[in-house]
Amino acid sequence: MATMHVPDDIRTTPATLGSRPALLVEPLGQPRGGTILYFHGGGFFSGSPRTALSVTANLVTRTNLRAYSVDYRLAPEHPFPAAIEDTLAAYRALLDAGEDPATIVFAGDSAGGGLTVTTCLAARDAGLPLPAAIAAFSPGLDATRTGASMTTKAGVDPFFTREGLDRTGAMYLAGQDPRQPLLSPAVCADLTGFPPMLLQTGTDELLLDDSTRLATRARDAGVDVILDVTAGVPHVFQAWAGTLTEAVDALDRAALFLTQRLPRE
Amino acid sequence: MATMHVPDDIRTTPATLGSRPALLVEPLGQPRGGTILYFHGGGFFSGSPRTALSVTANLVTRTNLRAYSVDYRLAPEHPFPAAIEDTLAAYRALLDAGEDPATIVFAGDSAGGGLTVTTCLAARDAGLPLPAAIAAFSPGLDATRTGASMTTKAGVDPFFTREGLDRTGAMYLAGQDPRQPLLSPAVCADLTGFPPMLLQTGTDELLLDDSTRLATRARDAGVDVILDVTAGVPHVFQAWAGTLTEAVDALDRAALFLTQRLPRE
Repeated sequence: MATMHVPDDIRTTPATLGSRPALLVEPLGQPRGGTILYFHGGGFFSGSPRTALSVTANLVTRTNLRAYSVDYRLAPEHPFPAAIEDTLAAYRALLDAGEDPATIVFAGDSAGGGLTVTTCLAARDAGLPLPAAIAAFSPGLDATRTGASMTTKAGVDPFFTREGLDRTGAMYLAGQDPRQPLLSPAVCADLTGFPPMLLQTGTDELLLDDSTRLATRARDAGVDVILDVTAGVPHVFQAWAGTLTEAVDALDRAALFLTQRLPRE
Repeated sequence: MATMHVPDDIRTTPATLGSRPALLVEPLGQPRGGTILYFHGGGFFSGSPRTALSVTANLVTRTNLRAYSVDYRLAPEHPFPAAIEDTLAAYRALLDAGEDPATIVFAGDSAGGGLTVTTCLAARDAGLPLPAAIAAFSPGLDATRTGASMTTKAGVDPFFTREGLDRTGAMYLAGQDPRQPLLSPAVCADLTGFPPMLLQTGTDELLLDDSTRLATRARDAGVDVILDVTAGVPHVFQAWAGTLTEAVDALDRAALFLTQRLPRE
Protein backbone atom coordinates (compact mmCIF):
# COMPACT_ATOMS: atom_id res chain seq x y z
CA MET A 1 0.00 0.00 0.00
CA ALA A 2 3.00 2.25 0.49
CA THR A 3 2.96 3.75 -2.98
CA MET A 4 -0.77 4.24 -3.25
CA HIS A 5 -1.56 7.89 -3.65
CA VAL A 6 -4.09 9.44 -1.28
CA PRO A 7 -4.88 13.08 -2.08
CA ASP A 8 -3.96 15.57 0.64
CA ASP A 9 -7.05 17.70 0.32
CA ILE A 10 -9.46 15.47 2.20
CA ARG A 11 -10.51 15.04 5.81
CA THR A 12 -11.24 11.60 7.30
CA THR A 13 -13.39 11.11 10.39
CA PRO A 14 -14.37 7.87 12.13
CA ALA A 15 -18.14 7.46 12.07
CA THR A 16 -20.93 4.96 12.54
CA LEU A 17 -23.45 4.17 9.82
CA GLY A 18 -26.23 1.71 10.52
CA SER A 19 -24.82 -1.13 12.57
CA ARG A 20 -21.16 -0.67 11.72
CA PRO A 21 -18.18 1.65 11.85
CA ALA A 22 -17.53 3.70 8.75
CA LEU A 23 -14.99 6.22 7.57
CA LEU A 24 -16.34 9.60 6.56
CA VAL A 25 -14.19 11.09 3.80
CA GLU A 26 -14.86 14.75 3.00
CA PRO A 27 -13.44 17.40 0.70
CA LEU A 28 -11.80 20.26 2.59
CA GLY A 29 -14.07 22.96 1.20
CA GLN A 30 -17.83 23.13 1.04
CA PRO A 31 -18.99 19.81 -0.46
CA ARG A 32 -21.77 19.55 -2.98
CA GLY A 33 -24.92 17.85 -1.76
CA GLY A 34 -24.96 14.07 -1.90
CA THR A 35 -23.05 11.05 -0.68
CA ILE A 36 -20.87 8.32 -2.11
CA LEU A 37 -21.51 5.11 -0.20
CA TYR A 38 -18.24 3.24 -0.71
CA PHE A 39 -17.58 -0.49 -0.29
CA HIS A 40 -13.93 -1.56 -0.04
CA GLY A 41 -12.41 -4.65 -1.63
CA GLY A 42 -10.54 -7.57 -0.11
CA GLY A 43 -12.43 -10.71 -1.07
CA PHE A 44 -14.94 -10.36 1.79
CA PHE A 45 -12.24 -11.56 4.23
CA SER A 46 -9.83 -8.59 4.32
CA GLY A 47 -9.50 -4.90 3.64
CA SER A 48 -11.03 -1.88 5.29
CA PRO A 49 -12.02 1.69 4.50
CA ARG A 50 -8.36 2.58 5.03
CA THR A 51 -7.01 0.12 2.45
CA ALA A 52 -9.45 1.52 -0.11
CA LEU A 53 -8.80 5.13 0.80
CA SER A 54 -6.88 5.96 -2.36
CA VAL A 55 -9.85 5.27 -4.64
CA THR A 56 -12.41 6.70 -2.22
CA ALA A 57 -10.48 9.91 -1.69
CA ASN A 58 -9.76 10.35 -5.39
CA LEU A 59 -13.50 10.13 -6.06
CA VAL A 60 -14.21 12.62 -3.29
CA THR A 61 -11.75 15.20 -4.58
CA ARG A 62 -12.99 14.81 -8.18
CA THR A 63 -16.72 14.96 -7.40
CA ASN A 64 -16.62 17.25 -4.34
CA LEU A 65 -18.99 14.77 -2.68
CA ARG A 66 -18.52 13.35 0.79
CA ALA A 67 -18.14 9.57 1.06
CA TYR A 68 -18.99 7.07 3.75
CA SER A 69 -16.82 3.96 3.43
CA VAL A 70 -18.45 1.07 5.26
CA ASP A 71 -16.44 -1.23 7.53
CA TYR A 72 -18.70 -4.22 6.91
CA ARG A 73 -18.23 -7.54 8.71
CA LEU A 74 -15.78 -10.02 7.17
CA ALA A 75 -15.48 -13.76 6.60
CA PRO A 76 -14.70 -16.33 7.84
CA GLU A 77 -16.25 -15.12 11.11
CA HIS A 78 -19.13 -13.52 9.22
CA PRO A 79 -19.93 -15.27 5.93
CA PHE A 80 -22.56 -14.32 3.34
CA PRO A 81 -24.88 -12.47 3.72
CA ALA A 82 -23.31 -10.54 6.62
CA ALA A 83 -21.51 -8.05 4.38
CA ILE A 84 -24.70 -7.21 2.49
CA GLU A 85 -26.69 -6.88 5.71
CA ASP A 86 -24.17 -4.27 6.83
CA THR A 87 -24.00 -2.33 3.56
CA LEU A 88 -27.80 -2.35 3.29
CA ALA A 89 -28.05 -1.11 6.89
CA ALA A 90 -25.62 1.68 6.03
CA TYR A 91 -27.75 2.69 3.05
CA ARG A 92 -30.90 2.54 5.12
CA ALA A 93 -29.25 4.75 7.76
CA LEU A 94 -28.58 7.41 5.11
CA LEU A 95 -32.21 7.25 3.99
CA ASP A 96 -33.45 7.33 7.59
CA ALA A 97 -31.34 10.44 8.15
CA GLY A 98 -33.39 12.11 5.43
CA GLU A 99 -30.95 11.88 2.57
CA ASP A 100 -32.59 11.90 -0.85
CA PRO A 101 -31.72 8.64 -2.70
CA ALA A 102 -31.39 10.74 -5.87
CA THR A 103 -28.24 12.21 -4.29
CA ILE A 104 -26.68 8.90 -3.17
CA VAL A 105 -24.35 6.85 -5.36
CA PHE A 106 -22.76 3.48 -4.64
CA ALA A 107 -19.10 2.87 -5.48
CA GLY A 108 -16.73 0.06 -4.66
CA ASP A 109 -13.81 -2.05 -5.77
CA SER A 110 -13.31 -5.80 -6.25
CA ALA A 111 -15.53 -7.59 -3.71
CA GLY A 112 -16.86 -4.15 -2.82
CA GLY A 113 -17.61 -3.58 -6.49
CA GLY A 114 -19.79 -6.65 -6.23
CA LEU A 115 -21.46 -5.13 -3.17
CA THR A 116 -22.47 -2.05 -5.16
CA VAL A 117 -24.68 -4.34 -7.24
CA THR A 118 -25.84 -6.79 -4.57
CA THR A 119 -26.65 -4.04 -2.07
CA CYS A 120 -28.77 -2.42 -4.77
CA LEU A 121 -30.52 -5.75 -5.36
CA ALA A 122 -31.12 -6.11 -1.62
CA ALA A 123 -32.46 -2.55 -1.44
CA ARG A 124 -34.84 -3.23 -4.30
CA ASP A 125 -36.00 -6.46 -2.66
CA ALA A 126 -36.56 -4.54 0.59
CA GLY A 127 -38.74 -2.02 -1.21
CA LEU A 128 -36.29 0.84 -0.69
CA PRO A 129 -35.74 3.55 -3.29
CA LEU A 130 -32.58 2.96 -5.29
CA PRO A 131 -29.47 5.14 -5.45
CA ALA A 132 -28.79 7.46 -8.39
CA ALA A 133 -25.85 5.51 -9.84
CA ILE A 134 -23.41 2.66 -9.34
CA ALA A 135 -19.68 2.71 -10.10
CA ALA A 136 -17.73 -0.52 -9.73
CA PHE A 137 -13.99 -1.01 -10.16
CA SER A 138 -12.88 -4.54 -11.17
CA PRO A 139 -15.99 -5.92 -9.50
CA GLY A 140 -16.37 -9.54 -8.47
CA LEU A 141 -19.86 -10.49 -9.62
CA ASP A 142 -19.82 -14.26 -9.92
CA ALA A 143 -19.21 -16.68 -7.05
CA THR A 144 -19.83 -19.56 -9.48
CA ARG A 145 -16.59 -18.56 -11.27
CA THR A 146 -18.00 -19.59 -14.64
CA GLY A 147 -16.89 -16.62 -16.73
CA ALA A 148 -14.86 -17.44 -19.84
CA SER A 149 -12.12 -15.13 -18.59
CA MET A 150 -11.59 -17.45 -15.61
CA THR A 151 -9.97 -19.73 -18.19
CA THR A 152 -8.79 -17.41 -20.96
CA LYS A 153 -6.99 -15.06 -18.57
CA ALA A 154 -5.47 -17.81 -16.40
CA GLY A 155 -1.74 -17.09 -16.26
CA VAL A 156 -2.38 -13.66 -17.81
CA ASP A 157 -3.92 -12.03 -14.74
CA PRO A 158 -0.96 -10.90 -12.60
CA PHE A 159 -3.05 -10.79 -9.46
CA PHE A 160 -5.46 -13.71 -9.18
CA THR A 161 -5.50 -17.46 -9.71
CA ARG A 162 -8.61 -19.63 -9.72
CA GLU A 163 -7.22 -21.56 -6.79
CA GLY A 164 -6.75 -18.40 -4.77
CA LEU A 165 -10.22 -17.14 -5.58
CA ASP A 166 -11.75 -20.50 -4.72
CA ARG A 167 -9.90 -20.69 -1.42
CA THR A 168 -10.80 -17.23 -0.19
CA GLY A 169 -14.25 -17.31 -1.74
CA ALA A 170 -15.07 -20.42 0.27
CA MET A 171 -14.73 -18.40 3.46
CA TYR A 172 -17.53 -16.06 2.39
CA LEU A 173 -19.67 -18.80 0.82
CA ALA A 174 -19.42 -21.09 3.84
CA GLY A 175 -21.03 -23.89 1.92
CA GLN A 176 -23.95 -21.87 0.59
CA ASP A 177 -25.13 -22.17 -3.01
CA PRO A 178 -23.21 -19.62 -5.13
CA ARG A 179 -25.96 -19.59 -7.74
CA GLN A 180 -28.08 -16.84 -6.28
CA PRO A 181 -28.38 -13.19 -7.29
CA LEU A 182 -26.79 -11.80 -4.13
CA LEU A 183 -23.68 -13.91 -4.73
CA SER A 184 -23.51 -14.10 -8.52
CA PRO A 185 -25.40 -11.18 -10.05
CA ALA A 186 -23.51 -11.55 -13.35
CA VAL A 187 -25.02 -15.03 -13.67
CA CYS A 188 -28.53 -14.78 -12.34
CA ALA A 189 -29.64 -11.28 -11.29
CA ASP A 190 -32.54 -9.42 -12.88
CA LEU A 191 -31.38 -5.80 -13.01
CA THR A 192 -34.75 -4.30 -13.91
CA GLY A 193 -35.13 -0.82 -12.49
CA PHE A 194 -31.44 -0.41 -11.70
CA PRO A 195 -29.82 3.01 -11.84
CA PRO A 196 -27.12 3.79 -14.42
CA MET A 197 -24.00 1.71 -13.94
CA LEU A 198 -20.31 2.18 -14.73
CA LEU A 199 -18.16 -0.94 -14.75
CA GLN A 200 -14.40 -0.41 -15.10
CA THR A 201 -12.10 -3.39 -15.45
CA GLY A 202 -8.94 -4.59 -17.22
CA THR A 203 -8.53 -6.82 -20.26
CA ASP A 204 -6.17 -9.16 -18.39
CA GLU A 205 -8.39 -9.92 -15.41
CA LEU A 206 -9.81 -13.30 -14.46
CA LEU A 207 -12.83 -11.21 -13.42
CA LEU A 208 -13.19 -9.48 -16.82
CA ASP A 209 -16.28 -11.45 -17.77
CA ASP A 210 -17.92 -10.73 -14.45
CA SER A 211 -18.29 -7.22 -15.83
CA THR A 212 -19.04 -8.10 -19.45
CA ARG A 213 -21.86 -10.43 -18.41
CA LEU A 214 -23.32 -7.97 -15.95
CA ALA A 215 -23.26 -5.29 -18.65
CA THR A 216 -25.18 -7.61 -20.96
CA ARG A 217 -27.78 -8.22 -18.25
CA ALA A 218 -28.05 -4.49 -17.64
CA ARG A 219 -28.59 -3.74 -21.34
CA ASP A 220 -31.16 -6.54 -21.52
CA ALA A 221 -32.99 -4.93 -18.60
CA GLY A 222 -32.98 -1.51 -20.26
CA VAL A 223 -30.45 -0.05 -17.84
CA ASP A 224 -27.84 2.58 -18.82
CA VAL A 225 -24.48 0.86 -18.56
CA ILE A 226 -20.94 1.87 -19.43
CA LEU A 227 -18.49 -1.02 -19.74
CA ASP A 228 -15.10 0.68 -19.58
CA VAL A 229 -12.23 -1.73 -20.21
CA THR A 230 -8.57 -0.75 -20.10
CA ALA A 231 -5.88 -2.97 -21.61
CA GLY A 232 -2.95 -4.32 -19.66
CA VAL A 233 -3.73 -2.89 -16.25
CA PRO A 234 -3.85 -4.77 -12.93
CA HIS A 235 -6.89 -5.49 -10.76
CA VAL A 236 -8.32 -2.23 -9.31
CA PHE A 237 -5.72 -0.20 -11.18
CA GLN A 238 -7.59 2.95 -10.07
CA ALA A 239 -5.79 2.54 -6.72
CA TRP A 240 -2.52 3.52 -8.41
CA ALA A 241 -3.41 7.07 -9.35
CA GLY A 242 0.01 8.23 -8.17
CA THR A 243 1.76 5.99 -10.69
CA LEU A 244 -0.56 5.16 -13.60
CA THR A 245 -1.98 7.64 -16.07
CA GLU A 246 -4.63 5.04 -16.79
CA ALA A 247 -5.76 5.28 -13.15
CA VAL A 248 -6.04 9.07 -13.24
CA ASP A 249 -7.99 8.94 -16.49
CA ALA A 250 -10.33 6.19 -15.26
CA LEU A 251 -11.04 8.08 -12.04
CA ASP A 252 -11.78 11.24 -14.03
CA ARG A 253 -14.25 9.30 -16.17
CA ALA A 254 -15.85 7.76 -13.08
CA ALA A 255 -16.21 11.18 -11.44
CA LEU A 256 -17.85 12.63 -14.55
CA PHE A 257 -20.23 9.66 -14.72
CA LEU A 258 -21.24 10.01 -11.06
CA THR A 259 -21.62 13.77 -11.27
CA GLN A 260 -23.82 13.49 -14.36
CA ARG A 261 -26.25 11.32 -12.41
CA LEU A 262 -26.76 13.76 -9.57
CA PRO A 263 -29.04 16.82 -9.54
CA ARG A 264 -27.31 19.71 -11.33
CA GLU A 265 -25.89 22.30 -8.96
CA MET B 1 -33.00 18.75 -38.75
CA ALA B 2 -34.74 21.94 -37.68
CA THR B 3 -34.48 21.31 -33.95
CA MET B 4 -30.92 20.04 -33.92
CA HIS B 5 -28.78 22.29 -31.81
CA VAL B 6 -25.58 23.65 -33.33
CA PRO B 7 -23.48 25.68 -30.91
CA ASP B 8 -22.98 29.32 -31.87
CA ASP B 9 -19.35 29.52 -30.86
CA ILE B 10 -17.85 27.80 -33.89
CA ARG B 11 -16.67 28.90 -37.31
CA THR B 12 -17.22 26.72 -40.41
CA THR B 13 -15.11 27.05 -43.55
CA PRO B 14 -15.33 25.05 -46.80
CA ALA B 15 -12.08 23.19 -47.38
CA THR B 16 -10.52 20.39 -49.38
CA LEU B 17 -8.89 17.38 -47.75
CA GLY B 18 -7.30 14.73 -49.94
CA SER B 19 -9.49 14.19 -52.95
CA ARG B 20 -12.71 15.60 -51.55
CA PRO B 21 -14.45 18.64 -50.15
CA ALA B 22 -14.56 18.90 -46.39
CA LEU B 23 -15.98 21.26 -43.82
CA LEU B 24 -13.50 22.75 -41.40
CA VAL B 25 -15.16 23.36 -38.02
CA GLU B 26 -13.16 25.47 -35.58
CA PRO B 27 -13.65 26.88 -32.09
CA LEU B 28 -13.73 30.68 -32.06
CA GLY B 29 -10.75 31.12 -29.77
CA GLN B 30 -7.29 29.63 -30.01
CA PRO B 31 -7.77 25.87 -30.53
CA ARG B 32 -5.66 23.26 -28.82
CA GLY B 33 -3.34 21.28 -31.10
CA GLY B 34 -4.87 18.33 -32.90
CA THR B 35 -7.70 17.44 -35.25
CA ILE B 36 -10.96 15.53 -35.16
CA LEU B 37 -11.45 13.80 -38.50
CA TYR B 38 -15.24 13.46 -38.62
CA PHE B 39 -17.31 11.10 -40.80
CA HIS B 40 -21.02 11.92 -41.13
CA GLY B 41 -23.83 9.38 -41.17
CA GLY B 42 -26.54 8.69 -43.71
CA GLY B 43 -26.22 5.06 -44.70
CA PHE B 44 -23.47 5.75 -47.26
CA PHE B 45 -26.11 7.18 -49.62
CA SER B 46 -27.09 10.46 -47.94
CA GLY B 47 -25.95 13.06 -45.45
CA SER B 48 -23.14 15.56 -45.51
CA PRO B 49 -20.87 17.47 -43.14
CA ARG B 50 -23.77 19.91 -42.73
CA THR B 51 -26.30 17.29 -41.60
CA ALA B 52 -23.81 16.05 -38.98
CA LEU B 53 -22.83 19.52 -37.85
CA SER B 54 -24.60 19.33 -34.50
CA VAL B 55 -22.47 16.44 -33.26
CA THR B 56 -19.27 17.70 -34.90
CA ALA B 57 -19.65 21.20 -33.49
CA ASN B 58 -20.56 19.95 -30.03
CA LEU B 59 -17.35 17.90 -30.00
CA VAL B 60 -15.35 20.92 -31.19
CA THR B 61 -16.68 23.23 -28.49
CA ARG B 62 -16.15 20.61 -25.78
CA THR B 63 -12.61 19.60 -26.80
CA ASN B 64 -11.41 22.92 -28.24
CA LEU B 65 -10.09 20.90 -31.18
CA ARG B 66 -10.69 21.77 -34.81
CA ALA B 67 -12.53 19.20 -36.92
CA TYR B 68 -12.48 18.33 -40.57
CA SER B 69 -15.73 16.69 -41.63
CA VAL B 70 -15.22 14.76 -44.85
CA ASP B 71 -17.71 14.99 -47.70
CA TYR B 72 -16.96 11.47 -48.96
CA ARG B 73 -18.54 10.07 -52.14
CA LEU B 74 -21.94 8.40 -51.79
CA ALA B 75 -23.82 5.40 -53.17
CA PRO B 76 -25.39 4.40 -55.42
CA GLU B 77 -23.12 6.34 -57.79
CA HIS B 78 -20.09 5.42 -55.69
CA PRO B 79 -20.46 2.07 -53.88
CA PHE B 80 -18.01 0.41 -51.48
CA PRO B 81 -15.10 1.07 -51.13
CA ALA B 82 -15.39 4.64 -52.46
CA ALA B 83 -16.27 6.12 -49.07
CA ILE B 84 -13.26 4.51 -47.40
CA GLU B 85 -10.95 5.58 -50.22
CA ASP B 86 -12.03 9.15 -49.55
CA THR B 87 -11.78 9.05 -45.77
CA LEU B 88 -8.39 7.34 -45.98
CA ALA B 89 -7.23 10.00 -48.46
CA ALA B 90 -8.39 12.67 -46.03
CA TYR B 91 -6.41 11.07 -43.21
CA ARG B 92 -3.36 10.71 -45.45
CA ALA B 93 -3.65 14.40 -46.36
CA LEU B 94 -3.47 15.36 -42.69
CA LEU B 95 -0.40 13.20 -42.23
CA ASP B 96 1.19 14.56 -45.42
CA ALA B 97 0.63 18.08 -44.06
CA GLY B 98 2.83 17.12 -41.14
CA GLU B 99 0.19 16.49 -38.52
CA ASP B 100 1.28 14.10 -35.78
CA PRO B 101 -1.06 11.05 -35.75
CA ALA B 102 -0.88 11.17 -31.94
CA THR B 103 -2.95 14.38 -32.18
CA ILE B 104 -5.58 13.06 -34.63
CA VAL B 105 -8.78 11.35 -33.54
CA PHE B 106 -11.51 9.81 -35.68
CA ALA B 107 -15.15 10.41 -34.84
CA GLY B 108 -18.36 9.66 -36.69
CA ASP B 109 -22.00 8.69 -36.45
CA SER B 110 -24.03 5.80 -37.88
CA ALA B 111 -22.47 4.82 -41.23
CA GLY B 112 -19.76 7.36 -40.40
CA GLY B 113 -19.26 5.61 -37.07
CA GLY B 114 -18.52 2.52 -39.10
CA LEU B 115 -16.03 4.55 -41.14
CA THR B 116 -14.09 5.46 -37.99
CA VAL B 117 -13.28 1.77 -37.64
CA THR B 118 -12.90 0.79 -41.30
CA THR B 119 -10.76 3.82 -42.13
CA CYS B 120 -8.51 2.81 -39.25
CA LEU B 121 -8.35 -0.73 -40.65
CA ALA B 122 -7.50 0.64 -44.09
CA ALA B 123 -4.83 2.88 -42.60
CA ARG B 124 -3.27 -0.06 -40.78
CA ASP B 125 -3.36 -2.14 -43.96
CA ALA B 126 -1.67 0.75 -45.83
CA GLY B 127 1.12 0.85 -43.26
CA LEU B 128 0.13 4.28 -41.96
CA PRO B 129 0.43 5.24 -38.31
CA LEU B 130 -2.91 5.07 -36.53
CA PRO B 131 -4.84 7.91 -34.91
CA ALA B 132 -4.88 8.46 -31.16
CA ALA B 133 -8.50 7.46 -30.55
CA ILE B 134 -11.81 6.55 -32.14
CA ALA B 135 -15.26 7.72 -31.02
CA ALA B 136 -18.29 6.24 -32.77
CA PHE B 137 -21.93 7.18 -32.20
CA SER B 138 -24.50 4.45 -32.99
CA PRO B 139 -22.04 2.97 -35.49
CA GLY B 140 -23.05 0.60 -38.26
CA LEU B 141 -20.43 -2.14 -38.18
CA ASP B 142 -22.04 -5.14 -39.82
CA ALA B 143 -23.24 -5.27 -43.42
CA THR B 144 -24.13 -8.95 -42.89
CA ARG B 145 -26.88 -7.77 -40.46
CA THR B 146 -26.41 -10.84 -38.27
CA GLY B 147 -26.45 -9.18 -34.85
CA ALA B 148 -29.00 -10.55 -32.38
CA SER B 149 -30.38 -7.04 -31.95
CA MET B 150 -31.46 -7.06 -35.61
CA THR B 151 -34.16 -9.46 -34.38
CA THR B 152 -34.61 -8.62 -30.69
CA LYS B 153 -35.00 -4.88 -31.33
CA ALA B 154 -37.24 -5.24 -34.39
CA GLY B 155 -40.29 -3.10 -33.72
CA VAL B 156 -38.51 -1.55 -30.73
CA ASP B 157 -36.09 0.62 -32.72
CA PRO B 158 -38.05 3.76 -33.63
CA PHE B 159 -35.74 4.59 -36.51
CA PHE B 160 -34.72 1.53 -38.50
CA THR B 161 -36.28 -1.59 -39.96
CA ARG B 162 -34.35 -4.52 -41.40
CA GLU B 163 -36.06 -3.93 -44.73
CA GLY B 164 -34.95 -0.33 -44.80
CA LEU B 165 -31.37 -1.20 -43.88
CA ASP B 166 -31.28 -3.94 -46.49
CA ARG B 167 -32.65 -1.66 -49.19
CA THR B 168 -30.27 1.22 -48.58
CA GLY B 169 -27.36 -1.03 -47.70
CA ALA B 170 -27.63 -2.70 -51.08
CA MET B 171 -26.75 0.60 -52.75
CA TYR B 172 -23.39 0.66 -50.98
CA LEU B 173 -22.75 -3.09 -51.29
CA ALA B 174 -23.55 -3.18 -55.01
CA GLY B 175 -23.47 -6.96 -54.96
CA GLN B 176 -20.16 -7.27 -53.13
CA ASP B 177 -19.65 -9.82 -50.35
CA PRO B 178 -20.59 -8.17 -47.02
CA ARG B 179 -18.41 -10.60 -45.10
CA GLN B 180 -15.19 -8.63 -45.20
CA PRO B 181 -13.54 -6.50 -42.52
CA LEU B 182 -14.04 -3.19 -44.33
CA LEU B 183 -17.79 -3.81 -44.53
CA SER B 184 -18.46 -5.82 -41.36
CA PRO B 185 -15.75 -5.15 -38.80
CA ALA B 186 -17.99 -6.32 -35.96
CA VAL B 187 -18.08 -9.74 -37.61
CA CYS B 188 -14.63 -10.32 -39.05
CA ALA B 189 -12.09 -7.59 -38.28
CA ASP B 190 -8.90 -8.15 -36.33
CA LEU B 191 -8.49 -5.01 -34.23
CA THR B 192 -4.93 -5.70 -33.10
CA GLY B 193 -2.99 -2.49 -32.60
CA PHE B 194 -6.08 -0.27 -32.63
CA PRO B 195 -6.16 2.91 -30.58
CA PRO B 196 -8.60 3.29 -27.67
CA MET B 197 -12.22 3.25 -28.77
CA LEU B 198 -15.45 4.70 -27.43
CA LEU B 199 -18.68 3.21 -28.73
CA GLN B 200 -21.91 4.97 -27.74
CA THR B 201 -25.25 3.46 -28.67
CA GLY B 202 -28.80 2.95 -27.41
CA THR B 203 -30.44 -0.11 -25.90
CA ASP B 204 -33.30 0.02 -28.39
CA GLU B 205 -31.27 0.05 -31.58
CA LEU B 206 -31.25 -2.61 -34.28
CA LEU B 207 -27.54 -1.73 -34.46
CA LEU B 208 -26.91 -2.29 -30.72
CA ASP B 209 -25.03 -5.53 -31.26
CA ASP B 210 -22.85 -3.98 -33.94
CA SER B 211 -21.26 -2.16 -31.01
CA THR B 212 -21.36 -4.97 -28.44
CA ARG B 213 -19.64 -7.36 -30.85
CA LEU B 214 -17.01 -4.85 -31.88
CA ALA B 215 -16.30 -4.15 -28.21
CA THR B 216 -15.77 -7.87 -27.63
CA ARG B 217 -13.36 -8.03 -30.57
CA ALA B 218 -11.52 -5.00 -29.22
CA ARG B 219 -11.16 -6.53 -25.75
CA ASP B 220 -9.99 -9.78 -27.31
CA ALA B 221 -7.32 -7.82 -29.21
CA GLY B 222 -6.15 -6.06 -26.05
CA VAL B 223 -7.55 -2.69 -27.07
CA ASP B 224 -8.96 -0.14 -24.62
CA VAL B 225 -12.68 0.08 -25.30
CA ILE B 226 -15.57 1.84 -23.64
CA LEU B 227 -19.00 0.49 -24.55
CA ASP B 228 -21.35 3.24 -23.44
CA VAL B 229 -25.01 2.26 -23.78
CA THR B 230 -27.91 4.56 -22.94
CA ALA B 231 -31.42 3.21 -22.46
CA GLY B 232 -34.39 4.37 -24.47
CA VAL B 233 -32.70 6.87 -26.76
CA PRO B 234 -32.97 7.06 -30.56
CA HIS B 235 -30.25 6.37 -33.13
CA VAL B 236 -27.46 8.98 -32.88
CA PHE B 237 -29.19 10.65 -29.96
CA GLN B 238 -26.10 12.84 -29.53
CA ALA B 239 -27.49 14.95 -32.39
CA TRP B 240 -30.26 16.19 -30.07
CA ALA B 241 -28.11 18.04 -27.57
CA GLY B 242 -30.61 20.90 -27.59
CA THR B 243 -33.39 18.64 -26.37
CA LEU B 244 -31.98 15.59 -24.57
CA THR B 245 -29.98 15.65 -21.36
CA GLU B 246 -28.71 12.23 -22.37
CA ALA B 247 -27.17 13.79 -25.48
CA VAL B 248 -25.39 16.51 -23.54
CA ASP B 249 -24.04 13.99 -21.05
CA ALA B 250 -22.90 11.56 -23.76
CA LEU B 251 -21.11 14.33 -25.65
CA ASP B 252 -19.39 15.42 -22.42
CA ARG B 253 -18.20 11.85 -21.87
CA ALA B 254 -17.01 11.60 -25.47
CA ALA B 255 -15.09 14.87 -25.20
CA LEU B 256 -13.39 13.74 -21.98
CA PHE B 257 -12.47 10.43 -23.62
CA LEU B 258 -10.97 12.13 -26.70
CA THR B 259 -9.12 14.72 -24.66
CA GLN B 260 -7.60 12.05 -22.42
CA ARG B 261 -6.07 10.39 -25.47
CA LEU B 262 -4.27 13.49 -26.72
CA PRO B 263 -0.97 14.90 -25.46
CA ARG B 264 -1.56 16.90 -22.25
CA GLU B 265 -1.49 20.64 -22.83
